[in-house]
Amino acid sequence: MSVEVITAIRQLRQRLSALRRQGRSIGCVPTMGALHAGHGALMERARASSDVVVVTIFVNPLQFDRRDDYERYARTFEADCQFSAEHGADIVFAPSAEEMYPQPMATYVEAPEITQYLCGAFRPGHFRGVATVVAKLFNIVQPDAAYFGEKDAQQLALIQQMTCDLNFPIEIVPVATVREHDGLALSSRNQRLTADERKAAPILFQALSEGRHLIASGERQPAKVKAAALAVIGREPLVKVEYFEAVDERMQPVEKIQDDVRLAVAAWLGPTRLIDNVLCRVA
Amino acid sequence: MSVEVITAIRQLRQRLSALRRQGRSIGCVPTMGALHAGHGALMERARASSDVVVVTIFVNPLQFDRRDDYERYARTFEADCQFSAEHGADIVFAPSAEEMYPQPMATYVEAPEITQYLCGAFRPGHFRGVATVVAKLFNIVQPDAAYFGEKDAQQLALIQQMTCDLNFPIEIVPVATVREHDGLALSSRNQRLTADERKAAPILFQALSEGRHLIASGERQPAKVKAAALAVIGREPLVKVEYFEAVDERMQPVEKIQDDVRLAVAAWLGPTRLIDNVLCRVA
Repeated sequence: MSVEVITAIRQLRQRLSALRRQGRSIGCVPTMGALHAGHGALMERARASSDVVVVTIFVNPLQFDRRDDYERYARTFEADCQFSAEHGADIVFAPSAEEMYPQPMATYVEAPEITQYLCGAFRPGHFRGVATVVAKLFNIVQPDAAYFGEKDAQQLALIQQMTCDLNFPIEIVPVATVREHDGLALSSRNQRLTADERKAAPILFQALSEGRHLIASGERQPAKVKAAALAVIGREPLVKVEYFEAVDERMQPVEKIQDDVRLAVAAWLGPTRLIDNVLCRVA
Repeated sequence: MSVEVITAIRQLRQRLSALRRQGRSIGCVPTMGALHAGHGALMERARASSDVVVVTIFVNPLQFDRRDDYERYARTFEADCQFSAEHGADIVFAPSAEEMYPQPMATYVEAPEITQYLCGAFRPGHFRGVATVVAKLFNIVQPDAAYFGEKDAQQLALIQQMTCDLNFPIEIVPVATVREHDGLALSSRNQRLTADERKAAPILFQALSEGRHLIASGERQPAKVKAAALAVIGREPLVKVEYFEAVDERMQPVEKIQDDVRLAVAAWLGPTRLIDNVLCRVA
């Protein structure tokens, strides 16, 4: 089982434009590599609705707010290609940083409102880097559809907003978070956890679940939901909460829970930062 | 002689995608209407290299820093369609503001460095509006090439930078400024000038020409070029200079003239703001 690896933008464009002329639809799964079953779910979803599945693997320097995080980010290219092939990808597009940024960047895509809270408040420049590189990848791959995980809820909201506001002719398909048996959301960063941190990490999903349970039971005060969730996380001294918020679909904290809300959390386990979220339906 | 007028994005996409499937190349001329011979030159250039020429006519509210300027901007739709037909356009795309902005915008394209000086310094938000609407039009029309006038040099530099940085698969074609016999650069705003203002307006091109002459004669100090040009403009009391600068191709003022520079000027004649520029070659 093998996949076609392309590293040059020009070559990818030629390859895809030939396929497009044959009437083939193109699905794109943008990733930073270190692929896991969460990415696998994106690829399988793309495979089910596209003639050609392109997985992009690019650890984007523009979206890292800390240099050590960029350098420590897992790079497992051979395994990623094997994994992509096994999950139905046709093409892996893996450009170098020089290929993507041949000259100093002077243009940025931003959505200040969507990125004001949650991760956007703690990672300056991160979402500007995400929106900009995704706009670049959209213009390079020109897919009919692109697939993003709900685990990165604010990123997904940003991409949806950008796609709509800038009229990209691309369908954005959200794919549900994949979790370990104990509830921990899959993330490339999980492999950095020590054994003790790994044991503690599922408390994040437990706290989100407790919050969701309270809302389902009629609680409408975000502060009370947050206090209960933080009390759950407080049981694990290895976990330091960065934020826990109830937000609407534009990623704005709500003062009262009236419509569906998303509970979102970020926390540090030693030097590793994890995020997770759940959607809470309000009948 | 007639042109096909389309106002809905969805309909334009369908029309163009049918043409694209037939292998036709698409050239796009983005305008705000009030068409004159400068736009005519863009269309003729597009006609010479494209199978299908799309002229977009949209007075973009996002790029006006002053509401009165937006409201006073000339709107001459019937004449514009006739003019487009006469200059070889196949399709006029003329969306309403609601079609282009159906919901509040939350995503912007920006190039802070390119837009820091010249008009960018005096028209807050203007170039953010320009870059954002052009990104939208690029994604709607998906042309092979797009045509922009050199009269708006900073806009042209911004679009070139954006196209390159964001990997739009579009060739940006600059087209030389068209001038009246007395040197005045064509602009939709010229028709707002009183008879006296119209008589005074060519002083801008005379000042630019004087600056270019000095540089060709060996002057390398921007301050001296500027002083000489301002002295020329000073002969016309109706003309109030906003800026006069010598800039490089990234629209940064130069401290010494070493490579080719562009002299750029903005000035007010009563309530009307005019801009112009010339490229000065340095052998």
